[in-house]
Amino acid sequence: MSDIPFTSMPAPPAIILVEPQMGENIGMVARAMANFELADLRLVKPRDGWPNEKARATASRADHVLDAARVFEKLEDALADLSLVYATTARARDSYKPVRGPEEAAERLVAHAPAGKTGVIFGREKYGLENDEVGLADEIVTFPVNPKFASLNIAQAVLLVSYAWRNASNPSKTPRFSAPPNPPAEKADLYRLFDHLEAMLDCRNYFFPPEKREALVQNLRTMLTKAQFSEQEVRSLRGVLKSLDRPAQHCGTDAS
Amino acid sequence: MSDIPFTSMPAPPAIILVEPQMGENIGMVARAMANFELADLRLVKPRDGWPNEKARATASRADHVLDAARVFEKLEDALADLSLVYATTARARDSYKPVRGPEEAAERLVAHAPAGKTGVIFGREKYGLENDEVGLADEIVTFPVNPKFASLNIAQAVLLVSYAWRNASNPSKTPRFSAPPNPPAEKADLYRLFDHLEAMLDCRNYFFPPEKREALVQNLRTMLTKAQFSEQEVRSLRGVLKSLDRPAQHCGTDAS
Repeated sequence: MSDIPFTSMPAPPAIILVEPQMGENIGMVARAMANFELADLRLVKPRDGWPNEKARATASRADHVLDAARVFEKLEDALADLSLVYATTARARDSYKPVRGPEEAAERLVAHAPAGKTGVIFGREKYGLENDEVGLADEIVTFPVNPKFASLNIAQAVLLVSYAWRNASNPSKTPRFSAPPNPPAEKADLYRLFDHLEAMLDCRNYFFPPEKREALVQNLRTMLTKAQFSEQEVRSLRGVLKSLDRPAQHCGTDAS
Repeated sequence: MSDIPFTSMPAPPAIILVEPQMGENIGMVARAMANFELADLRLVKPRDGWPNEKARATASRADHVLDAARVFEKLEDALADLSLVYATTARARDSYKPVRGPEEAAERLVAHAPAGKTGVIFGREKYGLENDEVGLADEIVTFPVNPKFASLNIAQAVLLVSYAWRNASNPSKTPRFSAPPNPPAEKADLYRLFDHLEAMLDCRNYFFPPEKREALVQNLRTMLTKAQFSEQEVRSLRGVLKSLDRPAQHCGTDAS
């Protein structure tokens, strides 16, 4: 049927499932991925452990995707080597991250591919992603579903993202976004920056009262994510933090 | 999350399933349709009769689609009131009918809608459509799946057609980048943040040697500009700086 070449395509995004509950769904996700040549499946704390026989049963012949799937304890670890990450969500959020449709997100994933690895995060079947999980992504992708009947299951959502990626990566189409000259840092670098800053602020009782800590941390992380800092910039910012951690000794007055 | 209006859309195509075998799949088809506001489901000789409780179980809340579904003895009858019909197929065929991808087929369905009703035929789970059934359609729609792994199930195929139709029928309403609800801070605020940070770094001899100061300052300002921080975010960052200016007193070890 199709004689569209699959050679010389940009690297497809990783698909990251956060705490997937049903093995059947993981298998259906692998199958949806394989249809459009995605292959990098990452599972964060799958409920029923891994490997999972039920996943194999529904994967059709997408065994190569299941065999290569990797399991992570923490979402941060699953994203560590990626430098452009989308979170999927169907709900409105108090987030200042850019929200894109599947086509536009796919175009950006394709444009970014020469600069670094990319990924798309999908939440639990029951309730999707937590706010702090969305906070780890650069942008949000949402689906133009009927608001009166928004009911995509996880494998269907992966199918649409994979399909949109396939369309965007078709060599006959020219991506409208050019990759930034300095690609964003890998997430692991960014998360180390978060940890560094938050530890310093903890030492100064910044997060007070304690019940506000989570929201404050979330705000800081969103702010530091949206700039899409490069590796070099993250390194500079860590240098700034190291410097700020020292006592102010070379000036007469309080600088604030 | 979407507040995309579904009014004034062209009439969506009918979805025609030829001898569907599994009730579960019929339910999943109804659910896929409902996500993108398709509503006209037609069943030609469903293997297990109709209605089918298993279809209801997998339809999520797409009962309105199942309730309105019509059953036909012959494919010809199911197509009688339609004037543009696509047949879906994953296999190469000795057919002289035009073969189109989902986007192009969807555009043609949308363009045709003012002139008459349209439909898309899907074959049996096991072996698709017979040649004489394809012969009843005007054109063929096929999916750009990986030829080494072509394994769309019937509900996935319906989902992709429905999604492509949704995009073609309302291209301008597909969510694009939404402007952040909080506009960037005024520059005066941002510059006060620069001054604050640079004064703190001066107090710690960060800019060393002095001849590098200008370039280092420039880098920091570029970094802090590109995030387009809002007024609230700039205020938060100044709070962070104030906190960092204090000695680290509440932790055992150096946080850096």
